[in-house]
Amino acid sequence: MKIDGTHYRSIWRESDGTVKIIDQRWLPHELRIVALTNRRDFASAIRDMWVRGAPLIGATAAYGVAVQMAHDASDAALAETWEVLHATRPTAINLRWALDEMTRVLKPLPPSERAAAAFRRAAEICDEDVEINRRIGLNGLELIRAISERKGGKRVNVLTHCNAGWLATVDWGTATSPIYHALEAGIDVHVFVDETRPRNQGAQLTAWEMNHHGVSHDLIVDNAGGHLMQHGEIDLCIVGTDRTTAQGDVCNKIGTYLKALAAKDNGVPFYVALPSPTIDWTVRDGVKEIPIEERDGGEVTHVQGRMPSGVVGLVQISPDGTPARNPAFDVTPARLVTGLITERGVAEASPEGLARLFPDRATVAAD
Amino acid sequence: MKIDGTHYRSIWRESDGTVKIIDQRWLPHELRIVALTNRRDFASAIRDMWVRGAPLIGATAAYGVAVQMAHDASDAALAETWEVLHATRPTAINLRWALDEMTRVLKPLPPSERAAAAFRRAAEICDEDVEINRRIGLNGLELIRAISERKGGKRVNVLTHCNAGWLATVDWGTATSPIYHALEAGIDVHVFVDETRPRNQGAQLTAWEMNHHGVSHDLIVDNAGGHLMQHGEIDLCIVGTDRTTAQGDVCNKIGTYLKALAAKDNGVPFYVALPSPTIDWTVRDGVKEIPIEERDGGEVTHVQGRMPSGVVGLVQISPDGTPARNPAFDVTPARLVTGLITERGVAEASPEGLARLFPDRATVAAD
Repeated sequence: MKIDGTHYRSIWRESDGTVKIIDQRWLPHELRIVALTNRRDFASAIRDMWVRGAPLIGATAAYGVAVQMAHDASDAALAETWEVLHATRPTAINLRWALDEMTRVLKPLPPSERAAAAFRRAAEICDEDVEINRRIGLNGLELIRAISERKGGKRVNVLTHCNAGWLATVDWGTATSPIYHALEAGIDVHVFVDETRPRNQGAQLTAWEMNHHGVSHDLIVDNAGGHLMQHGEIDLCIVGTDRTTAQGDVCNKIGTYLKALAAKDNGVPFYVALPSPTIDWTVRDGVKEIPIEERDGGEVTHVQGRMPSGVVGLVQISPDGTPARNPAFDVTPARLVTGLITERGVAEASPEGLARLFPDRATVAAD
Repeated sequence: MKIDGTHYRSIWRESDGTVKIIDQRWLPHELRIVALTNRRDFASAIRDMWVRGAPLIGATAAYGVAVQMAHDASDAALAETWEVLHATRPTAINLRWALDEMTRVLKPLPPSERAAAAFRRAAEICDEDVEINRRIGLNGLELIRAISERKGGKRVNVLTHCNAGWLATVDWGTATSPIYHALEAGIDVHVFVDETRPRNQGAQLTAWEMNHHGVSHDLIVDNAGGHLMQHGEIDLCIVGTDRTTAQGDVCNKIGTYLKALAAKDNGVPFYVALPSPTIDWTVRDGVKEIPIEERDGGEVTHVQGRMPSGVVGLVQISPDGTPARNPAFDVTPARLVTGLITERGVAEASPEGLARLFPDRATVAAD
């Protein structure tokens, strides 16, 4: 999407062959673009979260393999690169998928052909992600358009949680893609951005995206969405997801479940935007079956921001030694989800709804 | 309650006659006790939130009148003090009540007797608040005791939101009083403390209270409570309230409604602790009738904390110029409230439930 009028992706290859990314650790206070020139750069970028978001992590790993192939395209280097990059965030499903995919394409080729083929496949992986998100956006656009028409063209108010934006993908984002498409279609759309404690991805990334692309928005604390829904200020919610189960339960950033409850209580449609590869057909009951990562309590007791000096750092909000619990995700049961916006269309959040849209995959989940 | 073993109230008179408070602006990073020696001090303390919480504001205003009477006990000074102190936070109901009450007691007396009578009445107002909160605690204690017995003495986990603690009252607090009483009764009790964005009263004040009194607790982000309830980690919720309607709707710090929804969805009892004077018998439907204050967006875009330098200040979490919406309270409909813990007992959150416990007052609300 755009940063102050210029189109960017979150990862790209310059005409001289250099791979560049936005180092997202400095957002929203500074736009730093860095070149990743060797495998160690790519490993740092993924491990230390210069890039984040499942699709972008996958794309970055693919380019990491390509850059290494240009240095050393031997079988040993290919295998070692898989190990080095996979170890950076071992639970990231897209990371593993991208590394396996690159290996599948490159292994049969003679080393002399591997670098060129790797850059081609990495570029395709990026383009495939962009195309999936574009289709999610077009499918979600129709939901926003219908509300806009029902309201006689008056402003459509969308609430979103965390950052399922273009910064988490290669472009468009998932939850944000319908919003960007609505803007392009000339629909009056406004976004309420949950700040999304503890890491404030909403305040730091989604607000930054909206700001620089030129989408009307308001930042709110995570506590405020229920009140706004009670007073008719939200027309629909669209969030992303890390993992959706075969029965339509949605695992997403902590706090998503609370917004889904408020949406249900107030008759506000609650949609989840997702690329179909994030559907986990092996899991049915998300609350019971998905283990939730507990992260360091320091993310709760401290907040990152720009200090009056201009330096970005952490401040401590609680007393010294305060213990904290920090579950990173929660699961929203399918009964609270109005629909799943996928690249193939909008599915009902149920085993039947998903099976109708993905008959080629859902069969695996029969139990 | 206790600060590291020593008992404190939030406002008290020293043996030499000086009135002292804890300057709460420095919590949780520093315990600063200050003497309030003239009317200007008291006005600053209330206006600039050295003290906060309806009962404590009322008690502070009462002592403010008393201190002024010791300087000048004329009719003019009495009237002027009412005006000066009332102007500090004109929407605070307890403030107005305390000033009216002091005027009612002092006006008929000759000026020479006013100072002594004023200090007596201010001390009584404090003691009355302590007694109300003590009774709330004893009534709430029975709820915690019943859960503890049902669990065979295993840890009882309480979730609370914002600070309805002793720092917001003269002592005991409202929502915290059952917890402190449970601790005294030897019950194994643990508190999950919502940080309560945007002003972080949970992280700054409730966590500090728990820490220094010695109550087992964990700080959590406001997003986490629903997930913990889904997984059986919360046995009951107890929150405070700024205003409860005649039908049992509860206006409290923004985000309370979301926790009540999650409690309902998971069969977790959701209690509200309140001194009966905060029941507004003139209002029935809280969502429709209570206007919600919208505060400055800067509270959303910036967070207060202790910087690495040790200085307490604000950091900016969002991009420059991000607009924010900041509703300060929300209303939890009575249907989500399991019970109202008052000084007279636990009432069902309904017109009938409140009328049964307060037959002397509820009649006013007939419509």
